[in-house]
Amino acid sequence: MGICITNTLAVLPGKGAHDVGRHDIYVDGTDIVGIDESPAGFVATETIDGTRRLTIPGLVNAHTHTYMSMMRNAADDLAFTDWLFGTIVPIEDKLEPEDAYWGALLSQVEMIRTGTTCFNDMPMFVDQIARATRESGMRAVLARGLQGDAYDRDDFRLAQTMEARRENADCDRMAFRLGPHAPYTCGPDYLRMISDVAREEGMGIHIHIAESQDENDNMWAQHHCTPVEYVRDAGIFEAPTIAAHCVRVNESDRAILAENGVSVATNPASNMKLGNGFAPVPELMAAGVNVCLGTDGAASNNAQNMFREMGLLALIHKGTHDTPQCVSADEVFDMATINCARALGLPTGAIEVGRKADLVLLDLDAPSLTPLGNAVAALAYSANGGEVADVIIDGKVVMRGRELLTVDEELLRHEIARICQRLGLA
Amino acid sequence: MGICITNTLAVLPGKGAHDVGRHDIYVDGTDIVGIDESPAGFVATETIDGTRRLTIPGLVNAHTHTYMSMMRNAADDLAFTDWLFGTIVPIEDKLEPEDAYWGALLSQVEMIRTGTTCFNDMPMFVDQIARATRESGMRAVLARGLQGDAYDRDDFRLAQTMEARRENADCDRMAFRLGPHAPYTCGPDYLRMISDVAREEGMGIHIHIAESQDENDNMWAQHHCTPVEYVRDAGIFEAPTIAAHCVRVNESDRAILAENGVSVATNPASNMKLGNGFAPVPELMAAGVNVCLGTDGAASNNAQNMFREMGLLALIHKGTHDTPQCVSADEVFDMATINCARALGLPTGAIEVGRKADLVLLDLDAPSLTPLGNAVAALAYSANGGEVADVIIDGKVVMRGRELLTVDEELLRHEIARICQRLGLA
Repeated sequence: MGICITNTLAVLPGKGAHDVGRHDIYVDGTDIVGIDESPAGFVATETIDGTRRLTIPGLVNAHTHTYMSMMRNAADDLAFTDWLFGTIVPIEDKLEPEDAYWGALLSQVEMIRTGTTCFNDMPMFVDQIARATRESGMRAVLARGLQGDAYDRDDFRLAQTMEARRENADCDRMAFRLGPHAPYTCGPDYLRMISDVAREEGMGIHIHIAESQDENDNMWAQHHCTPVEYVRDAGIFEAPTIAAHCVRVNESDRAILAENGVSVATNPASNMKLGNGFAPVPELMAAGVNVCLGTDGAASNNAQNMFREMGLLALIHKGTHDTPQCVSADEVFDMATINCARALGLPTGAIEVGRKADLVLLDLDAPSLTPLGNAVAALAYSANGGEVADVIIDGKVVMRGRELLTVDEELLRHEIARICQRLGLA
Repeated sequence: MGICITNTLAVLPGKGAHDVGRHDIYVDGTDIVGIDESPAGFVATETIDGTRRLTIPGLVNAHTHTYMSMMRNAADDLAFTDWLFGTIVPIEDKLEPEDAYWGALLSQVEMIRTGTTCFNDMPMFVDQIARATRESGMRAVLARGLQGDAYDRDDFRLAQTMEARRENADCDRMAFRLGPHAPYTCGPDYLRMISDVAREEGMGIHIHIAESQDENDNMWAQHHCTPVEYVRDAGIFEAPTIAAHCVRVNESDRAILAENGVSVATNPASNMKLGNGFAPVPELMAAGVNVCLGTDGAASNNAQNMFREMGLLALIHKGTHDTPQCVSADEVFDMATINCARALGLPTGAIEVGRKADLVLLDLDAPSLTPLGNAVAALAYSANGGEVADVIIDGKVVMRGRELLTVDEELLRHEIARICQRLGLA
């Protein structure tokens, strides 16, 4: 299965700014095997004319809950407790495993169509999300949400995680992490147990930390520490950790995150939408933290479109810091690609020989990309995701000329409508 | 020319929240002539099946400079003076009238494709923008940028405005305003002259006010007043005025704007991108100011996509005010439609009998609108503009099934490439 993308404008890694130029890209099996030079014995079974295409590494969504797409636009402009306990939790209580499968598939369709090829998920019903991921062709890291108090190795949620991991060991596109939900839903003994399992099994961690001021205030009242300190003290950072949100992290917290090699997944839309404010992204970067970008779930975003998220990330900190020279387009693009690949330990996120062939081709004839100007600025400030024409994941073409090849979208819409009716959603 | 859109989900005016439901919409000539009831003698020459469409009033872009699209992604992440004097002004110095025509046409194509049917423009070469607007089929209010010091009724820029107004008097889709650029480029006598002409000719005003802290600091140093006070004292507010930006307006300024019926066009992307911060939109609303939404030019945005802008507006103030209950989706949608129509004195911006038939139909099969949930929340938080399928302006179908009927886009791309090459732009 050799694919050759000829004469495409491509965004390659560079020093500081990205390196944008015309290239031929060779894909064999699951990997990028050549740039401009065809490897010995390479046979192209498909050639894609890249002349009117901008080829970028597939975007990596660093934090989401894909099963939540059914709750899109179900509860907006509400106080946080009304949102969570008045709408989201009552819907979640009615969810059946099959609902999570269809919800995850819908999120994945939206992601593929807007140029995301890999996502880091914290679901319920992890087996159903794995099932959807097998079908869509996406790359994913799944961490079933965990919560508890005791040092209990028989925890049923942990067992579900390990079972899904075993059952999907044959699928190279999927990896599994442990997903302790948050400091306020996991006791220190429980977190210690998670840390021990992670170390023994060589697994990474996916957790929410310091999403809101309330979380910090409650942590202080109960434990006289910050959420970051609480999680560190329970040993979580001994495993490779990606921490979502980190909106309320002070200078000392930021140093702790940097020292422990914790990656932060920032979620600008979700943080603003729920009234939690702005994560200190420039300050996290200054502290040396690896920052990556995520959408969060559709119930608090309400999209799974990383172009929308890149636009937000590139703009809001210029607003909060009163300078146009804060969080550049090049930095944002790294946070949506290579930084997240690094956080997840995956060989994707850049167009380089030896990395996985997760590639997104945008239509250079789109008005929003005319003229293109600086290509990376165009990705952050002009594109909306509708320009994505072709998507290759793990060396397979999953979308060609906006036709999605892996999912029956008509059936998907039918099932979503059926589920929404049952759940009392419009 | 009767058009009937059957069984469409439509966003109609409501009390507080919008009224979303299934309707038949009847268009005759340039107007909406019936909702659910066919007027006597109505004959449909075209019927559009609206079953899988969400029909909304066309979005109204309250502030832009359409000729600037060639400068998209030409100068980003730079200090303001490097941006303006290092890149933008040197390009503008090389612009020829024909360039402005093609640039404006490109902006208009991007706007139509993302659901905008009307825009409020402050151009150079106003005759060329009018020419592009005749061709694209959009509705527009044009105010040639004016600047000067003396009370000079023979000002050549003013003469250009009045000539374009005369020459396009036959085109109902176009109106003309006077466009004094900003307090810092117009002396008090010049502004007084503009005010006098506006009153005599029954014309409105389009002006930039209080875009940056620098502008306010300089105004204070030179005139010991705020930009709002300076403009008011020169008599500008005696004509119907739409003021772009108003980022740095204090409580007293906001009261002045409200008392004088000045509408404010807020431009969140541009204000953040140039490091100017966040306009006090919730405070302007609280003061009773009519707030509307614009993109600003592509050199400082870098898109002309009002869906992107609605998303920003709905999110950023929740972030700055630490509450999810600040600037709701319904309020944002009004700022992108009816508020702007009101500011411009145009009978558009809502689906109501007697208003102009400026209608946008979105594809309900798009993943980003699945499930739809609250339709107005979907417009603010989920849609990216790529869902726009059909566009009707002034009763004419200008886009059908994403095929643009009024502009030769291939020729447009060719001309833009030629101009960019001459200007030294990528």
